[in-house]
Amino acid sequence: MDQHRRRDEEEAEVENAFNSEEGYDKKEKKEQREGEKGGEAEVFSVEKAFENKPIPSWRGQLTMRAFVVSFVLSILFSFIVMKLNLTTGIIPSLNVSAGLLGFFFVKTWTKFLEKFSLLKQPFTRQENTVIQTCVVASSGIAFSGGFGSYLFGMSERIAEQSEDTNHGFKNPSLSWIIGFLFIVSFRGLFSVVPLQKIMIIDFKLTYPSGTATAYLINSFHTTEGAKLAKKQVRTLGKFFSFSFLWGFFQWFFAAGDGCGFANFPTFGLQAYKNRFYFDFSATYVGVGMICPYLINISVLVGGILSWGLMWPLIENRGGDWYSKGLGQTSLHGIQGYRVFIAIAMILGDGLYNFIKVLTRTLSGLFHQVRNREMTSNLPIADQDSPVISKLSYDDQKRTQLFLKDQIPTWFAIAGYVTIAVVSIFSLPHIFPELKWYYVLVIYICAPALAFCNAYGCGLTDWSLASTYGKLAIFTIGAWAGSAHGAVLAGLAACGVMMNNVSTASDLSQDFKTGYLTLASPRSMFVSQIIGTAMGCIISPCVFWLFYKAFDDLGLPGSEYPAPYAVVYRNMAKLGVEGFSALPKDCLLLCYIFFGGAVVINLMRDTLGKIGSYIPLPMAMAIPFYLGPYFAIDMCVGSLILFVWSKIDKVKADKFGPAVASGLICGEGIWTLPSSILALAGVKQPICMKFLSRTTNSRVDTFLGSS
Amino acid sequence: MDQHRRRDEEEAEVENAFNSEEGYDKKEKKEQREGEKGGEAEVFSVEKAFENKPIPSWRGQLTMRAFVVSFVLSILFSFIVMKLNLTTGIIPSLNVSAGLLGFFFVKTWTKFLEKFSLLKQPFTRQENTVIQTCVVASSGIAFSGGFGSYLFGMSERIAEQSEDTNHGFKNPSLSWIIGFLFIVSFRGLFSVVPLQKIMIIDFKLTYPSGTATAYLINSFHTTEGAKLAKKQVRTLGKFFSFSFLWGFFQWFFAAGDGCGFANFPTFGLQAYKNRFYFDFSATYVGVGMICPYLINISVLVGGILSWGLMWPLIENRGGDWYSKGLGQTSLHGIQGYRVFIAIAMILGDGLYNFIKVLTRTLSGLFHQVRNREMTSNLPIADQDSPVISKLSYDDQKRTQLFLKDQIPTWFAIAGYVTIAVVSIFSLPHIFPELKWYYVLVIYICAPALAFCNAYGCGLTDWSLASTYGKLAIFTIGAWAGSAHGAVLAGLAACGVMMNNVSTASDLSQDFKTGYLTLASPRSMFVSQIIGTAMGCIISPCVFWLFYKAFDDLGLPGSEYPAPYAVVYRNMAKLGVEGFSALPKDCLLLCYIFFGGAVVINLMRDTLGKIGSYIPLPMAMAIPFYLGPYFAIDMCVGSLILFVWSKIDKVKADKFGPAVASGLICGEGIWTLPSSILALAGVKQPICMKFLSRTTNSRVDTFLGSS
Repeated sequence: MDQHRRRDEEEAEVENAFNSEEGYDKKEKKEQREGEKGGEAEVFSVEKAFENKPIPSWRGQLTMRAFVVSFVLSILFSFIVMKLNLTTGIIPSLNVSAGLLGFFFVKTWTKFLEKFSLLKQPFTRQENTVIQTCVVASSGIAFSGGFGSYLFGMSERIAEQSEDTNHGFKNPSLSWIIGFLFIVSFRGLFSVVPLQKIMIIDFKLTYPSGTATAYLINSFHTTEGAKLAKKQVRTLGKFFSFSFLWGFFQWFFAAGDGCGFANFPTFGLQAYKNRFYFDFSATYVGVGMICPYLINISVLVGGILSWGLMWPLIENRGGDWYSKGLGQTSLHGIQGYRVFIAIAMILGDGLYNFIKVLTRTLSGLFHQVRNREMTSNLPIADQDSPVISKLSYDDQKRTQLFLKDQIPTWFAIAGYVTIAVVSIFSLPHIFPELKWYYVLVIYICAPALAFCNAYGCGLTDWSLASTYGKLAIFTIGAWAGSAHGAVLAGLAACGVMMNNVSTASDLSQDFKTGYLTLASPRSMFVSQIIGTAMGCIISPCVFWLFYKAFDDLGLPGSEYPAPYAVVYRNMAKLGVEGFSALPKDCLLLCYIFFGGAVVINLMRDTLGKIGSYIPLPMAMAIPFYLGPYFAIDMCVGSLILFVWSKIDKVKADKFGPAVASGLICGEGIWTLPSSILALAGVKQPICMKFLSRTTNSRVDTFLGSS
Repeated sequence: MDQHRRRDEEEAEVENAFNSEEGYDKKEKKEQREGEKGGEAEVFSVEKAFENKPIPSWRGQLTMRAFVVSFVLSILFSFIVMKLNLTTGIIPSLNVSAGLLGFFFVKTWTKFLEKFSLLKQPFTRQENTVIQTCVVASSGIAFSGGFGSYLFGMSERIAEQSEDTNHGFKNPSLSWIIGFLFIVSFRGLFSVVPLQKIMIIDFKLTYPSGTATAYLINSFHTTEGAKLAKKQVRTLGKFFSFSFLWGFFQWFFAAGDGCGFANFPTFGLQAYKNRFYFDFSATYVGVGMICPYLINISVLVGGILSWGLMWPLIENRGGDWYSKGLGQTSLHGIQGYRVFIAIAMILGDGLYNFIKVLTRTLSGLFHQVRNREMTSNLPIADQDSPVISKLSYDDQKRTQLFLKDQIPTWFAIAGYVTIAVVSIFSLPHIFPELKWYYVLVIYICAPALAFCNAYGCGLTDWSLASTYGKLAIFTIGAWAGSAHGAVLAGLAACGVMMNNVSTASDLSQDFKTGYLTLASPRSMFVSQIIGTAMGCIISPCVFWLFYKAFDDLGLPGSEYPAPYAVVYRNMAKLGVEGFSALPKDCLLLCYIFFGGAVVINLMRDTLGKIGSYIPLPMAMAIPFYLGPYFAIDMCVGSLILFVWSKIDKVKADKFGPAVASGLICGEGIWTLPSSILALAGVKQPICMKFLSRTTNSRVDTFLGSS
């Protein structure tokens, strides 16, 4: 979920992945408990409520009407995302809207046909998921294509603004953009395929947004039967409405920066400066209710460690460790520590887990060949295995369907290699500055980073694609050195990287939704391919429309200033200077935190029960960069669930996920009308501002005198 | 309850009284319903839970320890009120704090004695009520004594500030202040006595604050027995804590004027300008839950009629009907219409009901003598009467006790006349400008106005003492004309009037509390006499301390500017100019609304069932003056109760009053620490400000540049 994320240097997304053996255990126990109670408390199982509904074959899930609707929605969403790209740069997540509008369109259509008895194929939740996936894949490219960031940052107009004409430029043109997107966008699909089983079946990551969307889709299609399911749907509806209306209400008070509930200094202005505040986001309270307690606590611990302790200490060194007066957003200053230490910790955790999974997979494969006794790659047929038999009815059914239609790993690897080869040969033709060996290195590192992003997103719902993009800008920029066009090379590398990691997390969310709605992985894969292809054509065309229609596109003060284009260009300029540009001891701290993340993971894996209480480094790293405000939201969610469980455990277990999904989806849908309001130029009327007592009296004097 | 009331011209209190035959019926039905359910749903009756606790005789309720505690609390509260008088002029209601602290002190004391087995008399809720009453009577004088308003407004220092030296002055001095207070303060007590039975037994007015305090006191003393009572206490405790913490949280964001949740433009800035907003006051939401639906709707209708329709229309005439540029607070301008039309309507309703009650009482008395068949003054012994037999167990028991110890009317009348005679002779000695016939007229009118204020307060919880004070300033000022000292005469008349009406409403609240806690009216009366005597000595002494300790008391910009002293003096200056000072057609409108109030009441009384749906003029008149924001709070309370009743009628009936009392008392208690914070000079750190989009960008530019 990209909601509330600001795509500036301060708060660009960091991918979050942490080892969730803990999450795995907890989740499993919970499902098991649910399964046990199924008998006594009527139908506790979602899938039992759907038992009498046939599941279409994976080909049957891919209907013509689904893709027509997807196409229409893709265009709509691409316009919305593009406009936001070019105005504020803040892009909300449209997953939920896609699911809802898809349902609405197809349902209207099928009802219409039903009236005239022309309906041949009923509308299923699988089809709904297919539409959702397709639209997400397509409109995701409007963001990851970098039209408001790296791609437009290459243009002459931006180079002039950045007073950087000697590093070259490349103006946008419809032909090369479409070519570039086709080359880089599909690769993400293939790197996701081998991950999905690990993330969803083995690690049982939560993917809060994906889960919430699935709940919503399931609830749309629950028409009969189960009393409990109906009650859950009603609960979801109530909290959905509340969250939507709350988002709507908040909107009115958010005119201008630092205004509105999202900037409420709940714990005072000093704490707010260090980003400790409760921002009244229903979404993150819901996310906190879905995430296991340990993750919420890890995030909070990370926030306190970084914004409560480390950054204030480092800021005291301002003038010594880095030159003063650089401000909060300069990578030469405090922001440099924030970004790179967070990345180091995430990479440490991510790589540890990547290698762990790789080792287990390989050793599993080895054992499988020898005596078919493997836990990690357990075949579903093996019903005697303790892992499978422990699963609830829902999980058994879902796992079975998910694995049945799995896409073979060889296919994914073959696809990836093919695209890599094509890229290595073709990308240097588009960007002569981007040498073929840069591309090769990116393609070798990419799977690990995609793993990190998909993993982190599964745990905390944060996709940090643009942070990985910045990493690419820096490393490739530094490698290219001061050679002519190093800036362009960095920006192009950013594009290659961002497309990869953002696809990995977005599509993993979709696979989770698919898993929970019994959509076939194959139909989802096909839908993603079609969606990506649509996106590669629609997004550049939409951008081209804006580019040609508004002559002053990208100029500051104009209607479409594309603020992040200059930011990305400046980062690339900085990257060219290499590691020496980083503030003092930053690299050393990065090494320490990288090592720390590995050590903590080792402890978690070796210390047994105590180890399972140790916070997850990846969860801790996210607030390093973003600030702990969303950690506070999530902990509020945890607290609500905890108190609720203490008061009425059965009810909390039954209705907790429905409440959480309602909270997430309601605000999620609100992003659609709010984006449309922004497109229509309707601005928020009121600013709810927070001033200190002294500033307030100064302002009062100012307002009184003028 | 005076909370959130600002004692400026804009929002000075208006007394609210409206005909509540409706309220009477509803309340009765509710109690009856509760009574019926009593059997099935365990003990539904509060008094049944207390059945095994003996009720002390009225003399037994008046203990030494109660008056020692009252004395200590009186000093504490007098300091708080005095300080607030002299700094901001905003005085919160301390009823609830008095009840709670009284309980706390005596309980600690009795527990201490119990430990050593020295306790002779257990601490009863009646004793608790006696303390509460005594403290309210005593600290009320710190406000109604006018140390921050009319009384200090007479001084030379204020006269100089108001550039009004030719109207004379009278500097404060301990001796005449104490004398004056002793003469005028006791009269209120006697005018309340005949009212109490009418207000509480006959009209069954709600007195939300008094009811809430009684709930709190009852809940403190429920130690054993009834499961339901315990559950209610727990509910009360929960909402009490919530309301307290909410008040605490709000405090942080209220630095400066127009800041904080109390100024939240919920419906936009335009609506806020016309005082349509939800001010997040837990108190008024609770009040709305206690008041009958019709009253809440009446208040809202009045708010819409005045602030939504009439005032904007009149303001459009600005420059024609009154000179432009006078601002919102000038009685020559729009504020004149607001204040005087509201008063006219209140007087119309109040006098109608006063005369109605008088007629019924007299005709009842006549019938009683003839055939003892009377409903209005029904003797409690007459158990065969349909009215009594309809009452619940609680109400029967309470009514019985209340009437048993009633103070005879002849005693009240004798006391009132005695004091009137003393006043007529002595007051002109203190203020030579206040002729004896002025005093006589005030004493003749006062009972009707006291009735109005007590009545309105019973219906809506608003005591509008200072508005009646302003009425006195105007009428007596106009009467005295331009004679030397007319300003002083007006101010003194204001004092005489304010003491009377404020006592009437405060003590009626207390009598309601006493009624609900089975405290004897006699012990309450004695407690009030003792409390008033304490107040007449403590308040002037406290004021004298401030006056002597701070040489710059009353000067603008000083630590104790006493802002309302100048305001009252200026009003008196204006009053001297007479009715000609009023804006155009204001007097005509006053006549129309006075007549309207009478006509509406006639309709309500004659139209039968339809009539009972007609809004009450007195409830409508209050927002005329204050603005409809509190009407919105109250309607929110109504809405909550309405929805709750729809979902679970039994639960809403059982726990509604507990929730409402918790909400009212929590914020009520918060006023104590917040006042102490103000005394200690701790100021709110943050201002939550609401600016329009354009103003916000101007402010941002200003803050950015400086």
